[in-house]
Amino acid sequence: MNEYAILHIPDSRYCFPAGEKELVIRLRMAREDEKAKVFLVYSQKYDFTFHRKKIPMEIKYSDRLYHYYEIRMMLADVRFAYIFEIEEAGTTWYFSEDGVTGEYRFEEGFYNFFQMPYINKNDVLETVDWMRNAVFYQIFVDRFRQGDHKKDTSYVNMEWNGLPTPKSFAGGDLAGITEKMDYIQELGINAIYLTPVFQSISNHKYDISDYYTVDPQFGSLEVLKKLVQTTHQKNIRVVMDAVFNHCSMEMKQFQDVLEHGKDSPFYNWFIIEGDFPNPEDMNYECFAACSYMPKLNTANEEVQKFLVDVALYWIREADIDGWRLDVSDEVSHDFWRQFRKAVKKEKPDCVIIGENWHDAYPYLMGDQYDSIMNYAFTKACLDYFAKGVFTAAEMADKLNANLMRNMDQVNRMMLNLLDSHDTHRFYTETGKDKNKVLAAIALEMVFTGAPCIYYGTEICMEGGYDPDSRRCFSWDSASWDMDFLEMVKKLIQIRKQPAVQYGDTEITAEQGMLAVKRNWKENTLILRINLEPEEKVISAKNETVLCENRCTDFILQEKGFLITTEEK
Amino acid sequence: MNEYAILHIPDSRYCFPAGEKELVIRLRMAREDEKAKVFLVYSQKYDFTFHRKKIPMEIKYSDRLYHYYEIRMMLADVRFAYIFEIEEAGTTWYFSEDGVTGEYRFEEGFYNFFQMPYINKNDVLETVDWMRNAVFYQIFVDRFRQGDHKKDTSYVNMEWNGLPTPKSFAGGDLAGITEKMDYIQELGINAIYLTPVFQSISNHKYDISDYYTVDPQFGSLEVLKKLVQTTHQKNIRVVMDAVFNHCSMEMKQFQDVLEHGKDSPFYNWFIIEGDFPNPEDMNYECFAACSYMPKLNTANEEVQKFLVDVALYWIREADIDGWRLDVSDEVSHDFWRQFRKAVKKEKPDCVIIGENWHDAYPYLMGDQYDSIMNYAFTKACLDYFAKGVFTAAEMADKLNANLMRNMDQVNRMMLNLLDSHDTHRFYTETGKDKNKVLAAIALEMVFTGAPCIYYGTEICMEGGYDPDSRRCFSWDSASWDMDFLEMVKKLIQIRKQPAVQYGDTEITAEQGMLAVKRNWKENTLILRINLEPEEKVISAKNETVLCENRCTDFILQEKGFLITTEEK
Repeated sequence: MNEYAILHIPDSRYCFPAGEKELVIRLRMAREDEKAKVFLVYSQKYDFTFHRKKIPMEIKYSDRLYHYYEIRMMLADVRFAYIFEIEEAGTTWYFSEDGVTGEYRFEEGFYNFFQMPYINKNDVLETVDWMRNAVFYQIFVDRFRQGDHKKDTSYVNMEWNGLPTPKSFAGGDLAGITEKMDYIQELGINAIYLTPVFQSISNHKYDISDYYTVDPQFGSLEVLKKLVQTTHQKNIRVVMDAVFNHCSMEMKQFQDVLEHGKDSPFYNWFIIEGDFPNPEDMNYECFAACSYMPKLNTANEEVQKFLVDVALYWIREADIDGWRLDVSDEVSHDFWRQFRKAVKKEKPDCVIIGENWHDAYPYLMGDQYDSIMNYAFTKACLDYFAKGVFTAAEMADKLNANLMRNMDQVNRMMLNLLDSHDTHRFYTETGKDKNKVLAAIALEMVFTGAPCIYYGTEICMEGGYDPDSRRCFSWDSASWDMDFLEMVKKLIQIRKQPAVQYGDTEITAEQGMLAVKRNWKENTLILRINLEPEEKVISAKNETVLCENRCTDFILQEKGFLITTEEK
Repeated sequence: MNEYAILHIPDSRYCFPAGEKELVIRLRMAREDEKAKVFLVYSQKYDFTFHRKKIPMEIKYSDRLYHYYEIRMMLADVRFAYIFEIEEAGTTWYFSEDGVTGEYRFEEGFYNFFQMPYINKNDVLETVDWMRNAVFYQIFVDRFRQGDHKKDTSYVNMEWNGLPTPKSFAGGDLAGITEKMDYIQELGINAIYLTPVFQSISNHKYDISDYYTVDPQFGSLEVLKKLVQTTHQKNIRVVMDAVFNHCSMEMKQFQDVLEHGKDSPFYNWFIIEGDFPNPEDMNYECFAACSYMPKLNTANEEVQKFLVDVALYWIREADIDGWRLDVSDEVSHDFWRQFRKAVKKEKPDCVIIGENWHDAYPYLMGDQYDSIMNYAFTKACLDYFAKGVFTAAEMADKLNANLMRNMDQVNRMMLNLLDSHDTHRFYTETGKDKNKVLAAIALEMVFTGAPCIYYGTEICMEGGYDPDSRRCFSWDSASWDMDFLEMVKKLIQIRKQPAVQYGDTEITAEQGMLAVKRNWKENTLILRINLEPEEKVISAKNETVLCENRCTDFILQEKGFLITTEEK
């Protein structure tokens, strides 16, 4: 047995409660040991010396090096002790806190068994129920639709159909989004994520000068309320952008510090070396290297209270359904813990989605966010669909590894995206290969978690890196590829199937195709993706995954992918 | 390279801030790869594509399977991105969030480099400074010393020199401890840990009926205050026992629920199935299988507030220096987070020590406890010294693995113990082998963390499992082994050396001996332990580690171990 490969971490993504009486246990082992028989040996923790049960574990996920065994237990007593027993080639091994051993002294287990000591209700991360079938649509507000034609538009400095620069203002606003809510609903979208809407001198508004005011370019509190009401009437949720890592240097608190330095009551709201902040010297912490975006000191209790109050204000006033947290990985864990407690107390099903581009497990243990923008999924899709550097097998490995980063509840709330205002557009990355984009959207819809479509993806909007990925939405439907659009709509409906909302996920590569299976009760929904030039026949079922542009009707078949169902 | 073995987890015990500008990074690799050259490739995270530095990493710890490389960085910018570069047999490997690869695209690093996104001050776990040289003495209060001879002693039901039963009361009290504070100080002790002192019908008082009253058997608030004052005057700290997982069924809140069931305002303080708790049916959660110890529902905000208030009350009233948390692993993380914030706000250097017998990393990330009772150390000492199932090399592996469970700051606050009221006495476990006990105490003193001596160890008290390990302290000094006692005192002084307080720890096995080196500035303090029957000569220095009963004077030499120093 490959001892080096074996990994289990109690009270972590390898052992977590999925409910007050439900425990999930995962064990990582080398793929080369797949012929081993793996058992969980367990009992109520105070009874471990005397009575134990033994149950086989099965492989549920696999990546390049490892198989991941998983078991889900319903517990009568939530004080749970366990070790693993592994039989291979006639030898029995035990794996406990003391590692892999040939013998195990059960009577001393209280020193070294693994354990979930107790499942306390308030430590269980619950899936926000509406996230189970959510399909998001991300809107960069200045570029989607201008709805208010009475507002002062003297700030608008670009043609709607022009190419944006970093300083462009196009005139999009909240009224425009409200106006187009029928369009969004017809796509099948049931959640929108808006980039920031609060007062700011920039077009993106990630540098906020007043957290309590909707920027007049975009509307007002009343306009926002109307947007949310309209949206809610259509059973669509609204997630807003919380930019709490930093603010604008225009914010009055920073202006006060610029003027009064250490004598300002807001001096400790920021992290400054010296008596006065000096934007030219950059003697204060800021976002990236942007002196006009001073970092907020989220270790300061006053700042913590200020920002938590902002979060609660907009939930109360506008009834929003979630916060996406900008540059959330640079904000303190301590702050996010307080933020979560306050937000969930105010509105338990308010979703909290961090912007962490990396493995964010330290923020996703139940005490901070619900999920993140899953840029690791983005990267995998780029490598598989757009750049072709991954085979189907490598993609299957990568997606499995992605799921093993977090607890199941978190995976089901992941915001899976192909692109955003911070990347190139995926369509552009594929070299404008519509079939690849559709296949990627199909994967987004069938994979565990909530897909997020960046506005305009459905009409094949192009765009390189910021600001090019932030072009204005073209409302001239004559320019749209209606077949593509209809296929996107069909794909979005796949996400609403019970198997996708509730099912297990099984990702493999078969015959050079990526296969994603969602198993729920008697049914299995299967997506097969074929990026190779040859058609593939799935022998058992005589179904064909096309590589050419033909369409038949199982659930959905398009060049490059096939979605079908099976009954058990 | 053994890819299966390689492990790094960002923002964890593998990458953690040791200060606001100080970062520690660890990498695990297979021992077989020890000839590889390992480098950290790093930069400020927004600069990673363009400019990076490269610095070699060195092996600092080793266990049976793995070497652990560690590096400590002082950062100018606390937004830190990194990957590992490994050169082996002419091949270069890169290790990032995407695993081990032969190539690495630095320009896409923002998707998959490892990172410490930012060090926020309030996320840094600080070492409680007085813990650096603390030597604890654990006192089971009923059995140490009776100081109050005016109290009602009708509850006392055993002879001081008799053998205790589970229901025995011997009469020990707080006044007795105060009376013997000179004795404790002369041992060299500078911290005491008292088992519970609050009102309870048992001798151990782990079933508390009133958290605001010192049990009259033990004294009163005034007596406790005097104890702490006396103790503080001698620069000795006092840690008390917080039994917050469960209470006594005698507690008035539970009595109220027994009487009124669901109509009681305290019904939700407990976790009950049905309208009334029924001790015979055990239809409520309790500690172990003890119906007289109902579990407190620490998910209930009222209970959380009640218990936090208790913790603060005794800090304010009695000025205690720490809480040891009973059955802390069964209490909710959420509660401990609130507990820590409140306690540290009240008294920043109040130490918080959990009773987790297992790897407690989920509680030791900076938001909950400072440390735990290190029963994994206890188990290793039993296996090495008492049971002889470990060789010196196996013991070195185990101790190294123990240190790799947690951040350095936590290791320095670990409560390292050989025994307690919950185990057999270590002296008994060794078959009354005084040399082995001394060698084990030597290890406790030199190992990273705070040693804790169970009362009476210094006079070779015997005892099997509870209640036998809770015998009364014998104050008849004629029965004491004075040589042993003096040696314990000498060993305790070793702990006060700067190398032990501040030094790095290096644990190896050499010539069948366990070697623990503490490196600090120009000096190295070395403990060598020889449990084999032959004397060992350390060739380079011509020092001998005895296996017979002779004593010379380096720093300290005794049968079985040698403590010495080296200058660089």
